Amino acid sequence: MNPKRYLPILQWLPHYDRGTLSSDLLAAVIVTIMLIPQSLAYAMLAGLPPEVGLYASIAPLVVYAVFGTSRTLAVGPVAVVSLMTAAAVGQVASQGGPEYLGAALVLTLMSGLILTVMGVARLGFLANFLSHPVISGFITASGLIIAAGQAKHLLGVEASGQHLPQLLASMMRHLSDVNLPTLVIGLSVLAFLYAARRWLKPGLLRAGVSARPADMLTKAAPILAVAATTLATWALGLDQYGVAVVGEVPAGLPPLTLPGLDMGLWRELFVAALLISIVGFVESVSVGQTLAAKRRQRIDPDQELVGLGTSNIASSLTGGMPVTGGFARSVVNFDAGAETPAAGAFTAVGIAVAALLLTPLIAYLPIATLAATIIVAVLSLVDLGAVKRTWSYSRSDVAAMLATIAMTLLQGVEVGIMVGVGLSLALHLYRTSRPHSALVGRVPGTEHFRNVERHTVETDERLAILRVDESLYFANARFLEDTVMDIATRQPSLEQLVLACQAVNVIDASALESLEAINARLKDAGVMLHLAEVKGPVMDRLQHTDFCHEMTGKVFLSTFDAWQELRGHSDGSLSRRCAEMQRLGTRPDPINDLPQPHPRMR
Amino acid sequence: MNPKRYLPILQWLPHYDRGTLSSDLLAAVIVTIMLIPQSLAYAMLAGLPPEVGLYASIAPLVVYAVFGTSRTLAVGPVAVVSLMTAAAVGQVASQGGPEYLGAALVLTLMSGLILTVMGVARLGFLANFLSHPVISGFITASGLIIAAGQAKHLLGVEASGQHLPQLLASMMRHLSDVNLPTLVIGLSVLAFLYAARRWLKPGLLRAGVSARPADMLTKAAPILAVAATTLATWALGLDQYGVAVVGEVPAGLPPLTLPGLDMGLWRELFVAALLISIVGFVESVSVGQTLAAKRRQRIDPDQELVGLGTSNIASSLTGGMPVTGGFARSVVNFDAGAETPAAGAFTAVGIAVAALLLTPLIAYLPIATLAATIIVAVLSLVDLGAVKRTWSYSRSDVAAMLATIAMTLLQGVEVGIMVGVGLSLALHLYRTSRPHSALVGRVPGTEHFRNVERHTVETDERLAILRVDESLYFANARFLEDTVMDIATRQPSLEQLVLACQAVNVIDASALESLEAINARLKDAGVMLHLAEVKGPVMDRLQHTDFCHEMTGKVFLSTFDAWQELRGHSDGSLSRRCAEMQRLGTRPDPINDLPQPHPRMR
Repeated sequence: MNPKRYLPILQWLPHYDRGTLSSDLLAAVIVTIMLIPQSLAYAMLAGLPPEVGLYASIAPLVVYAVFGTSRTLAVGPVAVVSLMTAAAVGQVASQGGPEYLGAALVLTLMSGLILTVMGVARLGFLANFLSHPVISGFITASGLIIAAGQAKHLLGVEASGQHLPQLLASMMRHLSDVNLPTLVIGLSVLAFLYAARRWLKPGLLRAGVSARPADMLTKAAPILAVAATTLATWALGLDQYGVAVVGEVPAGLPPLTLPGLDMGLWRELFVAALLISIVGFVESVSVGQTLAAKRRQRIDPDQELVGLGTSNIASSLTGGMPVTGGFARSVVNFDAGAETPAAGAFTAVGIAVAALLLTPLIAYLPIATLAATIIVAVLSLVDLGAVKRTWSYSRSDVAAMLATIAMTLLQGVEVGIMVGVGLSLALHLYRTSRPHSALVGRVPGTEHFRNVERHTVETDERLAILRVDESLYFANARFLEDTVMDIATRQPSLEQLVLACQAVNVIDASALESLEAINARLKDAGVMLHLAEVKGPVMDRLQHTDFCHEMTGKVFLSTFDAWQELRGHSDGSLSRRCAEMQRLGTRPDPINDLPQPHPRMR
Repeated sequence: MNPKRYLPILQWLPHYDRGTLSSDLLAAVIVTIMLIPQSLAYAMLAGLPPEVGLYASIAPLVVYAVFGTSRTLAVGPVAVVSLMTAAAVGQVASQGGPEYLGAALVLTLMSGLILTVMGVARLGFLANFLSHPVISGFITASGLIIAAGQAKHLLGVEASGQHLPQLLASMMRHLSDVNLPTLVIGLSVLAFLYAARRWLKPGLLRAGVSARPADMLTKAAPILAVAATTLATWALGLDQYGVAVVGEVPAGLPPLTLPGLDMGLWRELFVAALLISIVGFVESVSVGQTLAAKRRQRIDPDQELVGLGTSNIASSLTGGMPVTGGFARSVVNFDAGAETPAAGAFTAVGIAVAALLLTPLIAYLPIATLAATIIVAVLSLVDLGAVKRTWSYSRSDVAAMLATIAMTLLQGVEVGIMVGVGLSLALHLYRTSRPHSALVGRVPGTEHFRNVERHTVETDERLAILRVDESLYFANARFLEDTVMDIATRQPSLEQLVLACQAVNVIDASALESLEAINARLKDAGVMLHLAEVKGPVMDRLQHTDFCHEMTGKVFLSTFDAWQELRGHSDGSLSRRCAEMQRLGTRPDPINDLPQPHPRMR
């Protein structure tokens, strides 16, 4: 056991020097400035008090620096996971009360435990259930839901609804209540942030600022918007005119919190915690791998699960919310020159200072400002072009993507992602449940065998050689039964059937039972079953099975061996036995000789 | 469109003659005798009045004769499906009331519609989700639950419980209430049925009766038990001593029934109806295929779905319950000489006569007799040996089987089957998510390339050739990313990487995105990506993608072509470009050049 593997901090801390320190410190300052408004906004999106977002950006970052394997991933609250948190916690508690906060802590702890267990048990492959089209569709739909949900803060109206259509309808009904000062603030911030994205960087570049500082300044636009609108609201007393503000935020370091142990609540939140864990992990690991590759570094996905899991556990113990690696802030961190996860720990110090000292200043921060920040961030997640790109490549993938988008919009995040995963699995099984197989014949004068439909080959009406081009497992086992019995029915003179297995890497228990059924049914039909070209590891396992003893035929090394021997023995022993029985006027007793279809039902 | 395909009755009815008629009539008489006690017993198992079992054995058999493709399958209520019916309907209505009966009709109709739609849409592959180990474990566990549930009727005590442990505990608590006459009847029938199974047939054979009649007589043992105990109960007035009896059963033909259209109820029952449909179909098709093979006949699984679906629709319209092909009775039907599905229609006539005339006679039929019949039938379903057999062959299959058994016993049939399906899918994905791949080198002096770890081959430190032995799809896409980046990290001198794709039959959209990510990350690391031996259909689709244009390297026809060209160009264009950029003191802008990890999150 290599401690460096389980404590990645040991890989870089011993070599830490002044140069690294100054790079990391600079990156930390820049990420802190970007993270403050994001933390507040995503806490609001999750339906939690703003300070919870700050708390979730302190301890988790320090813990990730110890256990995480990415050198530059910036951990904290992110949009999609915050939306999923709101959806999950909203089902068990009503927003604003202490139960809501408590349930969010439980959700965070569960997500942390799930991730850690998955990492320790090396279950990272579970994330493979989320195909790219599903996660892409899911994030697009989430972005639309989040943007629609924030629009009400921009308008200053009440609105509620479980899913997108209800939410929009509710907003329409309250449209007359729109608060003008709120709308002005919201639209100004929206316009400013879009302008900053579009014109600030080119403008700075033209003004002679070099590329990196220009980019950094652009990323700081949200904090400028926060400062300006807070100041304006305070100076003009806009809260008196109906502008909703963040209000009193307690100053101080994160509290120690102990998530509750109510088993009923844990059970209710389990599926949500699992989905949040997997979605968060998939996103985080994708960002981490992209950044690591730029410096030829590696991240270890299983250890990464532990890193994110322990971060979430830390978050749940310090009054936080679910966290994961964020895309935009990780890129900023990387580009600002962060060299080690110490940059994350320094960011945590920055946020802690903000939590201690800056909270009194944000009492007058308008909610509309945060809403505009969120809208700008999430609308860039919406990628409807992906539907078109995928459409031109694969119809079944686009079906999974569209189903995920539609169900997420209409039925919510959990149903959406589960339908998408279910459908992509079903489509995959459908594809592999009809594996390519071909009846082959001998290319005259050679030892090669080719598809009888494509080539002029020698065949024998008493012998069929079926080449299967896929591993045999439960999804295609029954298809093989159908295919073989089809051949036996169409070729009444058939006496010998050979399965050529050069492409079969695995035969699972279901396929083994199918082979047994095929063998028994062929036997009843007077046809012997043989195998050829079975790979070593597959044969090793077959040798200890009943099938191997009950098989009416033999296992040949090569298809050619089978061809040579079976053409010679066309009056094989089984058909002789069957002919004999027919002559004697008996036939196999169908009840006692019946190969019990296993499992059976009466 | 071939009408014979969709109306299989057209395949045999035109050729129907007297010989076939007499064979079918004989089989129908024997199956009728067997089916009467089974119908009554399985209706009771489903929590329904006994006549419902009879009704379900009339119209469905006629409809199956029209639409079904098996010549000898005997359709009707079966044990496992009846248990699933009780579990599903019990969750929405309490047993005994009209709501319960109504919900059962809705469940039957839904199951019929689901099966028919699956058949018409050719969705039979969905049954592949049920791997053999899962269905075997499920049926074993169901058999145990059914036997335990019937034990209370044998003892004449009250007991209830959602799952096996509660049921057993409840039975223990009521053990003092045991009714002695009931117990005597129950144990006598149990002993008689076991004795008949074990000794009756050998005894008859020794007495000179030939094999088939001996077997038929053995199968008729339950009807003898029914007759004897009914007579005894009536004659001795045992119902006065606490022996529970079937009671008044209305005589008459099946009523016309219209299942309700309450959408809430439909939604609640949907999952159960889906599971019942799939479990019933898998069992039925397995029996049907086994029997068809004995006469070199074929059954068409998709049309079989239509046959079973329309049978269930018919059942729901005539006061019945869910039906499917039963194992034991189909074997009896086959062995009694049934040649066409007309035997089923004649059986329906027999049951109709029983429903009209015999119902007054069964008022004194003890429940304990039916319970004993069920116990004997279902205990033969319990196949714990399958666990051992599977254990020796495949650990992952045995895990799925044990999980199914445990969850079915502890959490009920629906949870059990879903956990089993989920786990077997997860284990399958786990297996394929780590496809075999090998770095290959050139066998000196040849054009062959072999695994560098197994053979002495030529390699080049600036060139890596990775052979992937599996189709690329979502479950292994990320593994490929890991493998490639691992190679790039471990081989710092690497400049060219070739993916040899001779075994890649499909590249789905997820794998395409992974290839794009691999290409971009390798580019950042100064490594060019090439493909070799791409199959025709795969290349056709790749050609229209962005990946094909963005790929830093080329597509080579053969691995050897790649080897020859890339060894010569070790100072390839990309590494030259990178070297140049380093010389100029710039590097690719990580924000704007960043290949957006797709989908992305901020």
